[in-house]
Amino acid sequence: MKFGLFGAATAQRSNNPDVDSSAGFRDYIDYVIEAETLGYESVFIVEHHFTGFGQVSATLNLLTWIGAKTSTIRLGTAVLVLPWHNPVLLAEQAATVDLLSGGRLDFGVGKGYRHNEYEGFRIPMEEGQARFEESIDIITKSWVSNERFDFRGKFWSYDGIVVEPPTIQRPHPPFWQGAGHPDSIRRVAARGHHLLLDQFASIDETVRRFNIYRDAMIANGFGFNPLQVGVARAFFVADSEAEKDAAIERRMVAQKRLHDISQRPDRNNTASIMAFSDTREANEEATLFGTPDEIIAKIQRLRDQGVEYILLNGGGTSRENLRRFASEVMPAFKGVAQRRAAE
Amino acid sequence: MKFGLFGAATAQRSNNPDVDSSAGFRDYIDYVIEAETLGYESVFIVEHHFTGFGQVSATLNLLTWIGAKTSTIRLGTAVLVLPWHNPVLLAEQAATVDLLSGGRLDFGVGKGYRHNEYEGFRIPMEEGQARFEESIDIITKSWVSNERFDFRGKFWSYDGIVVEPPTIQRPHPPFWQGAGHPDSIRRVAARGHHLLLDQFASIDETVRRFNIYRDAMIANGFGFNPLQVGVARAFFVADSEAEKDAAIERRMVAQKRLHDISQRPDRNNTASIMAFSDTREANEEATLFGTPDEIIAKIQRLRDQGVEYILLNGGGTSRENLRRFASEVMPAFKGVAQRRAAE
Repeated sequence: MKFGLFGAATAQRSNNPDVDSSAGFRDYIDYVIEAETLGYESVFIVEHHFTGFGQVSATLNLLTWIGAKTSTIRLGTAVLVLPWHNPVLLAEQAATVDLLSGGRLDFGVGKGYRHNEYEGFRIPMEEGQARFEESIDIITKSWVSNERFDFRGKFWSYDGIVVEPPTIQRPHPPFWQGAGHPDSIRRVAARGHHLLLDQFASIDETVRRFNIYRDAMIANGFGFNPLQVGVARAFFVADSEAEKDAAIERRMVAQKRLHDISQRPDRNNTASIMAFSDTREANEEATLFGTPDEIIAKIQRLRDQGVEYILLNGGGTSRENLRRFASEVMPAFKGVAQRRAAE
Repeated sequence: MKFGLFGAATAQRSNNPDVDSSAGFRDYIDYVIEAETLGYESVFIVEHHFTGFGQVSATLNLLTWIGAKTSTIRLGTAVLVLPWHNPVLLAEQAATVDLLSGGRLDFGVGKGYRHNEYEGFRIPMEEGQARFEESIDIITKSWVSNERFDFRGKFWSYDGIVVEPPTIQRPHPPFWQGAGHPDSIRRVAARGHHLLLDQFASIDETVRRFNIYRDAMIANGFGFNPLQVGVARAFFVADSEAEKDAAIERRMVAQKRLHDISQRPDRNNTASIMAFSDTREANEEATLFGTPDEIIAKIQRLRDQGVEYILLNGGGTSRENLRRFASEVMPAFKGVAQRRAAE
C-alpha cells in the first residue's frame, strides 16, 4: 500500500515589508523533503489563481523546485486546470519537469470549478469541458509525436510543430483526473487515465466510485492496477477525542472558506467538488482523524475493498502529524502488503 | 566588472530508447553550478519552440531547477517571448521563481523573431510588437498590484484579479530587453528596462548602442547604472591561431543553422537579430576568441567606453573554457574594478 500527500503551500502578498512571503513555500518544501525520507510516495499540489490568500498558482514551477531538492518522491499536480493554459506550452513545461526529475511527474488535470477563476481569465464556464478535452488531445499528441504535426481545434491551432523536450516516461507521464459522478469516472476510464477520488466522500461512496472505475478500465481493455486510483483523505493523528474534535472544527472552517471562494455570485455553483460533507458527521466519516488505531481501522475498510493508494492532506505542514502517521500508521500496511505479495 | 553566461541547453527527441535526452540538460546544469563557484554573476537562458533539435522551451522551469541547485547566481531569461504566453500565467511563474530563489530572477523579454515559431503558434507576426507591449503592461501591473484589478486589452482581458505569489524583488524583478536599432533602444529606455546588447555587433557598434541607451535613460530621469546593460559576447580561450580559427569556423556553421531556422519561406525575415556578422572578419571582431591577452584587450576596449557587464556564450558547455576564462581573464578586471572603486 502507498501513501502520498496532497495539498497546497501559500505565499501571500503583503504591503508589509516585514512579512516574509516566501516562508510558506519554504516550509512546505521542507515538509515534502522530510516526507520523502519518511517513505511517502508522492506529493500532489493544487493550482489556483486570484485567491487573495496565496494558494499556489505556478504549480509546475514549485514542483520543479521540489524535484530538484528531492530524489525519489513523485511530483504530482492535483490538478492543473487545463482551460487556463496554452496546451503546447503546458506540454513543454510538464515534459521539462519529467525530464529533469528522472520521470517523476504525475500529470493531474482538471477543468476547474471556481467561478472567480473563470471570471478572472474571462473564459466562459460553459466552455470548460470542451476546452479540457481539446487540451488533453493536444498535450497527448505533443508528447507522443516525434514528427511535426498540425492541429486544428475549436480553441487552439498549431502548424508544423514538434514539441520539445521529450518526456522521460513513455509513452508519456500518467494523466490523473479527479471525478466523482459515475459518468465522469467513465470518461476518465475511456481515456485510460488514472483516477483521483476526493477527500470529501464517505468510505462507502468512495468504494462505489473505485469499483465503477475498475470495471470500466477492464471493460475498455486497459486492465486495472489499484495504484492507478489515488484516494484523497484528510489526516490528523490525535491522542484524544478532544484533539480530534478540535481538528474537525478547524477543517470545517477551512473548508467553508474554499467553498465560498469557488462560488458564483448566485451561490449556485453546481460544479463545486465541495457540495457535500458540510456536517460534522460527514467530516468524521470521510477523514482519517483519530488515534492511530482508529485511522488504521478506516484505512483497512478501504483496503478491504481494493484501495491501495491514499493521498493524505494534513491541512498544513505539521511535522508531528507527518511523522506520527509514518511511524504509527504506515507500518500496519507494510506488513499486510508483504503478506499479500507472498500469497 | 561582472561576467554572466547566456546560452541554451538542448534535449532532443529521439525514437532511439538508448538516447538519453536528459543528458544535455544535466550537463548544462552542472556547467552553471560550476560557473557559480567560479564567480560568474548570472545565467541567461533562451526560449525557443519547435526547433527539432531540442532548444529550451520551458525556460522558467529549467531556471527553477537551476535555482534550486545554486545559491547566488542570478537566473535570467534571454529572452522569454511574450507573444506566446498568457501574461498573467507568466507573471505567476516568474514571481514563483523569484520568490523561491530569494530574488534572483532577471526577467528578459522579447517579441520573437523566428517565423516558424509565429507560424507554429499561429500568431500573425505583425501583431508581435503590440502583443509584446500589452503583455509588459499586464505583467508589470500584476506584480505591483496588491489590490484586485480589471484589465481590458486588445489581446488579453481579466476581471477582478490579484496575481500571486508576490515577487521578492521590489517593485518587481528587472525587465531586460534585447534591442539594436536606435528606436528600439529608446523604447527600452522609455520603460526604464535594462538592456541586452547582442553578440553579433562590432565593438564600435555596441558602444554606440550603449551610449544611446545611457543618454536616453538619463534623459528619461531613470538615471544610469552600467550594470543595467548586458553585452553579449561569444567567448573561447585559445592557445593558438589555429585553435581560434577552428572555433570561428564552428561558430559560423552554428550561426547559419540558427539563421536558417528563423527565416520566412521567402528568406526575407527582417526581424532576425542575426542579419549581419556573417563574415569571418565580423566574427573575429565581435567575439572574445583568442588568447587570454587578446580577450583582455577586447574587453578593455569595451570597458574604456563604460561597459561593465558582459554575458558570455561559449557555444556549448566546455568546462575548460569556463575555467580558463575565470582564472586567466576575469582577474584582470577585478583589479581594475578595485582601483576604480578606490578613486
